[in-house]
Amino acid sequence: MATSAAKRFAIGVDYGTNSVRALVVDIQDGSEIAESVFNYPSGEAGILLDSGDPNLARQNPADYIQGFYRSVRGAVRAASKKRGFQPENVIGIGVDTTGSTPLPVDRDGMPLALQPAFEKNLAAHAWLWKDHTSYAEAAEITDRAGRAKEGYLAKCGGSYSSEWYWSKILHCKRVAPKVFAAAYSWVELADFIPGFITGNLDPDTMPRGICSAGHKAMYHEDWGGLPTKSFLKRVDPGLASLRDHFANPALSSDQKAGTLTAEVAKKVGLPAGIAVAVGAFDAHMGAVGAGIKSGTLVKIIGTSTCDMMVAPMDRTLPDIPGLCGIVPGSIIPGTYGLEAGQSAVGDIFNWFVKHMTPAEYTAKGDPHVNLTKAADRLKPGESGLLALDWNNGNRTILVDPLLTGLIVGQTLHTSAPEMYRALVEATAFGALTIINRLEEYGVKVKEVVNCGGIAEKNAFVMQIYADVTGRPMKISRSAQTCALGAAIFGAVVGGGYKSVEQAQRKMTGTKPKFYRPNKKAVGVYAQLYEQYRALHDAFGTAEFSGKLDSVMKKLITIRQQVRR
Amino acid sequence: MATSAAKRFAIGVDYGTNSVRALVVDIQDGSEIAESVFNYPSGEAGILLDSGDPNLARQNPADYIQGFYRSVRGAVRAASKKRGFQPENVIGIGVDTTGSTPLPVDRDGMPLALQPAFEKNLAAHAWLWKDHTSYAEAAEITDRAGRAKEGYLAKCGGSYSSEWYWSKILHCKRVAPKVFAAAYSWVELADFIPGFITGNLDPDTMPRGICSAGHKAMYHEDWGGLPTKSFLKRVDPGLASLRDHFANPALSSDQKAGTLTAEVAKKVGLPAGIAVAVGAFDAHMGAVGAGIKSGTLVKIIGTSTCDMMVAPMDRTLPDIPGLCGIVPGSIIPGTYGLEAGQSAVGDIFNWFVKHMTPAEYTAKGDPHVNLTKAADRLKPGESGLLALDWNNGNRTILVDPLLTGLIVGQTLHTSAPEMYRALVEATAFGALTIINRLEEYGVKVKEVVNCGGIAEKNAFVMQIYADVTGRPMKISRSAQTCALGAAIFGAVVGGGYKSVEQAQRKMTGTKPKFYRPNKKAVGVYAQLYEQYRALHDAFGTAEFSGKLDSVMKKLITIRQQVRR
Repeated sequence: MATSAAKRFAIGVDYGTNSVRALVVDIQDGSEIAESVFNYPSGEAGILLDSGDPNLARQNPADYIQGFYRSVRGAVRAASKKRGFQPENVIGIGVDTTGSTPLPVDRDGMPLALQPAFEKNLAAHAWLWKDHTSYAEAAEITDRAGRAKEGYLAKCGGSYSSEWYWSKILHCKRVAPKVFAAAYSWVELADFIPGFITGNLDPDTMPRGICSAGHKAMYHEDWGGLPTKSFLKRVDPGLASLRDHFANPALSSDQKAGTLTAEVAKKVGLPAGIAVAVGAFDAHMGAVGAGIKSGTLVKIIGTSTCDMMVAPMDRTLPDIPGLCGIVPGSIIPGTYGLEAGQSAVGDIFNWFVKHMTPAEYTAKGDPHVNLTKAADRLKPGESGLLALDWNNGNRTILVDPLLTGLIVGQTLHTSAPEMYRALVEATAFGALTIINRLEEYGVKVKEVVNCGGIAEKNAFVMQIYADVTGRPMKISRSAQTCALGAAIFGAVVGGGYKSVEQAQRKMTGTKPKFYRPNKKAVGVYAQLYEQYRALHDAFGTAEFSGKLDSVMKKLITIRQQVRR
Repeated sequence: MATSAAKRFAIGVDYGTNSVRALVVDIQDGSEIAESVFNYPSGEAGILLDSGDPNLARQNPADYIQGFYRSVRGAVRAASKKRGFQPENVIGIGVDTTGSTPLPVDRDGMPLALQPAFEKNLAAHAWLWKDHTSYAEAAEITDRAGRAKEGYLAKCGGSYSSEWYWSKILHCKRVAPKVFAAAYSWVELADFIPGFITGNLDPDTMPRGICSAGHKAMYHEDWGGLPTKSFLKRVDPGLASLRDHFANPALSSDQKAGTLTAEVAKKVGLPAGIAVAVGAFDAHMGAVGAGIKSGTLVKIIGTSTCDMMVAPMDRTLPDIPGLCGIVPGSIIPGTYGLEAGQSAVGDIFNWFVKHMTPAEYTAKGDPHVNLTKAADRLKPGESGLLALDWNNGNRTILVDPLLTGLIVGQTLHTSAPEMYRALVEATAFGALTIINRLEEYGVKVKEVVNCGGIAEKNAFVMQIYADVTGRPMKISRSAQTCALGAAIFGAVVGGGYKSVEQAQRKMTGTKPKFYRPNKKAVGVYAQLYEQYRALHDAFGTAEFSGKLDSVMKKLITIRQQVRR
């Protein structure tokens, strides 16, 4: 394709929960030549919290803007020191972000939080994906959507989440009516960044991505885009007008959002006019960066997980209960994108280290490494412990943010490494539950490719995943699959490749080393999984054991009463 | 009664789980003039453990003998510095111990563990109350006893425990047949010490206490003492002969076991010939030291709890399912002694501090105090957490040592003080479950008197107990109610009082300060208790929710398979 004299590059910009990363990629082979990370300066590790409400998680939009400038400029500078890189040879930029992370914006598409009047108002900031304040609204929307003739819920797992677009907007209307009234539109972060850097911010016309719209806003061509005005009106009369400020159709990320403005280009040290792809969520672009194709489950394991698959559109895919969404083109244009996930994985391990780990493991070195060393010496089943991985609710397959954690089997000798291992195993059981659900509905999982920090660095966790699922665990070659996936879309919109699949074949792969299931461990975990399912079904569904499915909910009701 | 010129004293010797305490008491008003504590030197805090089996807990009988000498000598020396004390004015000695803590002994009544051949054999040592190795044998005995026409189980809660006499002996026969074969008899620690210090050690004739025999060995006058030989033979042919080496009738502790031998007297600095009462368990004598009477529940709160009541023998008391035992004369001669309890209370808090508490709370000062300070600021229900208090099984009302701990409601923000508080609350819910069971069967609880270290020092725990039970929590005046109770029996056998009740009126009382239930907290805890009962019944009984009652058991089965 290109000789070394004419190398071409794409930049992927990946907005995570705590930081944004820019990655400069050689489009010929996917090699990553430079990167730069910017940590969001606001709040606690970039998250604005409310000590009175553990469900609240917001972010400062100013961090996003500053983050683009700083990370891209940093990556371009670092790349400039490498042989063969010239800013002029950057052909495209792709952007992925967390989501659903909607921002209320003004008539010009700029975040309300940037206006002095709203600066201090948490409701005017970005509503981070893991904000769960809107659980009551989610239940309300689920109820209404379930009764609507359009069948809105069928494509998003049978339940509308508190993490998603309309729940958050409706909750804002209820608790911060001034912010709601001032918002001309609500824009997903994945759309805001491409819009901002290409100067296409007018909410009425800016390109919106199919990924966020389809997975989180109930966008579908069957009903002509966002949910109908009459439906939105039934949910709340104030919502209907928002449908007018949204340009149809929503686009897949092989489409251009525009080109880099001169103003932004100057700030980051690139020429103006570079093609910018329509934005999508981190997990979706990450799946592309990990080489997703039909039959390959890509697990992106970080603070939470996203479990991504694609399925050909030449056959009718049944609706799969509990899946976050099935959206045409949300991952690879021309195929169904399937998204599942666990609401917390690394977050659970971090919680344990922060709140439950004695000095013995925290005094010296990385507590995760210390705990892992001890936990790795234990045999499966040896501790007698079993946990549910629900400290942040359950995304797939129960779609219930109000579920909570549970650990059973403690004795007077139970140690911190035993608990830590039980929590790791719990996340593996959660992962298996997702695989089982996909296969029950005909989506065969032939291969599992893992990516994200935990997959990359944690052999202990990956071996447990292999043993619990009974499947080999492969690891994506790139340590930055999200940013790489974004760069792939940059390469496509910049004309480097004709299709995403073509780009993937050149730019992605897996590591030679992978994790094989250990037969003996597989047998023990099969027994433990039966018990996990008993707990899962008893506490998570109404089908079993009349009384227990309400325990977690009642505890939360009491908690909310008391805190009020 | 006595003028200051002729003060009279009794000594109570209290064998706890980790140490033995001798207390010198003025019998006129119960004032405690001197004490001395000896920590058992063997094993971990006096307990011999097996790293391969968390159920095992043994003790070295040599520690008991040395402990008598050292603690009593120390107390006598300290008392001798006080005005009015003379060793010659000590009129009686009482002894209480943990139990069921049986020791295999030789023909002379001396512990096998003291013989060089058995010194290293854990089975030849004392089988500490909290040894749970015999759970399979307990199930077997429960099964056989349940089918016997005598109705052995009715007096011990419907289930025979792995903590008790026959379970331990039978398990010894199975796992250490040489020890079993060498044992001429098995003697409870509560009988061994009075026997040893009075020279009445011949197993065939030594006085045995009704308290240990009745509560732990299925002794009852209805069937002429220990279970019949034909029953014991059905359990195991080897057990039957043990019945021959046991002198009937078993005695209450207002009876003399004998008088102090010259040899022992010399070692402890007392005159020979002092009256020694028949031994009983710590909780039973502790209840006496706390002023137990009809309608008064005495809670002895330490590593575990014992919940003690007495009931008049002028009416027929129904058998109460789940109570450890109902034994005539086991607490106060002439009344029914009722024993219930929780297998772990302080032990659960200690476990949490040792294994689950971050440096923030352990680096400086007492971790319990630090956690308490933070946990005390929380409102009831505020954490959304709920725990079961079963880390060491459940004694009352489920009588099941194989139950395990459970915590539910964790989020990513759950803190160590929240968990600590949830564990304290769990023990309070367990306490309430016992009170409810007593009252359901007609034993009215008019007053609750608490004693033991936690009752004495921990206002936080006591307030939660008041709020959870909705009842005032009184605190025993003495900080050493077990030793005081033992001294009361010493005073009675020494002729200082005609009856235990008469001695109690002079020698016991409660503190002026007590804990009143807070109305608001009572309301919240009533809601939480409903959820506790849902978990309790689902995981602890077969009556509810088909699948979950087996979860804890299956986890233990898997654990045992893997460890084998």
